[in-house]
Amino acid sequence: MEISKRAASMPSSPIRKLAPYSDLAEKSGVKVYHLNIGQPDIRTPQCALDALKSVDRTILEYSPSDGFLSLREKMSDYYARYGIVLRPDEIIITAGGSEAVLFAFLTCLGQGDEVIVTDPFYANYMAFAISVGAVVKGVKTRIEDGFRLPPIEEVERCITPRTRAVLICNPNNPTGYLYTREELERLRELVVRHGLFLICDEVYREFVYSGAPYVSAFHLDGMDENLILVDSVSKRYSECGTRIGCLCTRNKAVHDAVMKFCQARLSPPLIGQIVAEASADVPDEYMKSVYEEYLGRRNFLLEGLNRIPGVYSPMPMGAFYTMARLPVDDAEKFCMWCLSEFRYEGQTVMMAPGAGFYTEPGEGRQEVRIAYVLCREDLAKALTVLEKALEAYPGRTL
Amino acid sequence: MEISKRAASMPSSPIRKLAPYSDLAEKSGVKVYHLNIGQPDIRTPQCALDALKSVDRTILEYSPSDGFLSLREKMSDYYARYGIVLRPDEIIITAGGSEAVLFAFLTCLGQGDEVIVTDPFYANYMAFAISVGAVVKGVKTRIEDGFRLPPIEEVERCITPRTRAVLICNPNNPTGYLYTREELERLRELVVRHGLFLICDEVYREFVYSGAPYVSAFHLDGMDENLILVDSVSKRYSECGTRIGCLCTRNKAVHDAVMKFCQARLSPPLIGQIVAEASADVPDEYMKSVYEEYLGRRNFLLEGLNRIPGVYSPMPMGAFYTMARLPVDDAEKFCMWCLSEFRYEGQTVMMAPGAGFYTEPGEGRQEVRIAYVLCREDLAKALTVLEKALEAYPGRTL
Repeated sequence: MEISKRAASMPSSPIRKLAPYSDLAEKSGVKVYHLNIGQPDIRTPQCALDALKSVDRTILEYSPSDGFLSLREKMSDYYARYGIVLRPDEIIITAGGSEAVLFAFLTCLGQGDEVIVTDPFYANYMAFAISVGAVVKGVKTRIEDGFRLPPIEEVERCITPRTRAVLICNPNNPTGYLYTREELERLRELVVRHGLFLICDEVYREFVYSGAPYVSAFHLDGMDENLILVDSVSKRYSECGTRIGCLCTRNKAVHDAVMKFCQARLSPPLIGQIVAEASADVPDEYMKSVYEEYLGRRNFLLEGLNRIPGVYSPMPMGAFYTMARLPVDDAEKFCMWCLSEFRYEGQTVMMAPGAGFYTEPGEGRQEVRIAYVLCREDLAKALTVLEKALEAYPGRTL
Repeated sequence: MEISKRAASMPSSPIRKLAPYSDLAEKSGVKVYHLNIGQPDIRTPQCALDALKSVDRTILEYSPSDGFLSLREKMSDYYARYGIVLRPDEIIITAGGSEAVLFAFLTCLGQGDEVIVTDPFYANYMAFAISVGAVVKGVKTRIEDGFRLPPIEEVERCITPRTRAVLICNPNNPTGYLYTREELERLRELVVRHGLFLICDEVYREFVYSGAPYVSAFHLDGMDENLILVDSVSKRYSECGTRIGCLCTRNKAVHDAVMKFCQARLSPPLIGQIVAEASADVPDEYMKSVYEEYLGRRNFLLEGLNRIPGVYSPMPMGAFYTMARLPVDDAEKFCMWCLSEFRYEGQTVMMAPGAGFYTEPGEGRQEVRIAYVLCREDLAKALTVLEKALEAYPGRTL
């Protein structure tokens, strides 16, 4: 018995390769600052935690395959506050944003079909594409351009007869880039002209530091049939573990097809839905304080990073990640070295090597993704450790 | 934009077609006895409900991709009580048995590969096979044989160069059939000789009415590399909504490949895992009373069914379903007629048409699947309604 070709070609995330070294360091008493993950350290809203304790069901039974109507109504109200008009029956609850991406791919991409994604991108998109037998075509964005969308002609050149969809993550993981309305308009024009789906992953909508209101793909006119929104409550309410996300579309054929995949897996998590529904009533002060916290961390981190000799990171306008270029021969080797060999006052740092976010081998070799999911005090210590590590690293290029 | 061929070929379950008629009947005040679903009416164990109320986390964060070690240890202990030796690192927690089936298929079946399943089978296997681009080959089992495994030569004749796996559900949904040790041995010999995977869905392990100890595929020797177990806590603790299942295998390559699919979707539901872990400590009396309840219902239902003129249902030795042959022209039409036209003292019944569980068009046309997930009092009423409906149905064949 051999595993399928698909299974054999599933990528191993570079973070996974580093994890045993981080575990080892921690077991030996070293303090490891985890800048490598998207798990916020922010407290889940009290109303969500209270909802857990007040579940009064005596049978923890299946919920509807598209999720509770009451939750979809709350989601609809939530979107309305962002000026996004979505009826509850245009919203399908999924097991996190992950399942929404999988179902979007299953619905839009056949065997051998292609999806265009701005490169670097969230590595699990590749895993879901491989799962459904589809191919990811990366459109390169560059750190020196702040990861903005390249001229639309560059995107258009990636289109082949097998292209079915364009996928963007906005604000972007891993770059923190926030797409402008003009960029979104150009993408809209492109997908409409070529008859492609536009899959928008907007799970970081709350974390936008531009001062301007957030521009969602659903704010654009004339692409109702093209658009599929992927969303999640994981990041906004710091409840990644509940596995509640959603897929929104006004395209009836897509909606009905996604529902068949939903029915096959029966239902999204029951308790997660109860928690997510309660979270919709979170006080504004909670959201505001979380926002202020991330904004402060971003400013602090970026200033600190760019002060280290040879380090460059463009200012991210959204999410809670930034890509940084380091003065090293190979960022993966450097990250590994930090975990296995380098210690500064009993501390070290763990970061995600950039190469794992790019399709092309060799790209992002000097880059790392840094998540600012630690408090400022820890970020300050992590920055010091990083600076000392760069001074000591044998493969330093500066 | 068109949806993928895969999405277009996803089956619509016959129950889904009936659902709007059932809703309509209920809205007009008709009492509908739901014999169509696998949602138990049994109370979730108190220790599980209590665990919910005592969650003291302040961040509902991601859990490990393979689930909490503490839960996998409890699962390992649980299996030991069934004489199944599985280490925690041979157990991977999934979002219900559904995700375990999907991940088993993704790992074992490439595009165009075939999986042999005893026919009739749980309809969602087909949906997962289509999702991964694989083909289901049904080996017909017959109501007049009590749905036992046909001679192994019939199974062997289905094997082609594209066959990668045999899948059985034991005890069986939808038939309630319990495979004998001899049948399992024959399957073992077959998969080992042909180098195939054997995927065993054992989610109804608790519900075995033969009086003899349960024989799991893991009780058989010499197929460690072939065997993949699909399991779930949904049915045994009446917690279908928590979406906690698992995939167990001693095949390292399969384990590692499944883990990559797990990592792509980040983690199984956090709260569901907490509930499932607490459920492992359920008192024996709970399990015993649930068992007695189902046993009593089965005996009551089967006696009642076979007393109705023209109705035949073989005695199911496991799970909580039975397939019954009715004296009607077309069971789907009959089920629809019950919901839309027939009333007896303001009541009617909803059953799952048998054809939806068979691969071959035309098979199971006189059969229905009946789930005994109602208390005996309601089962008695449902039986009366069914008898009256069969007397009144214009398409009656008796």
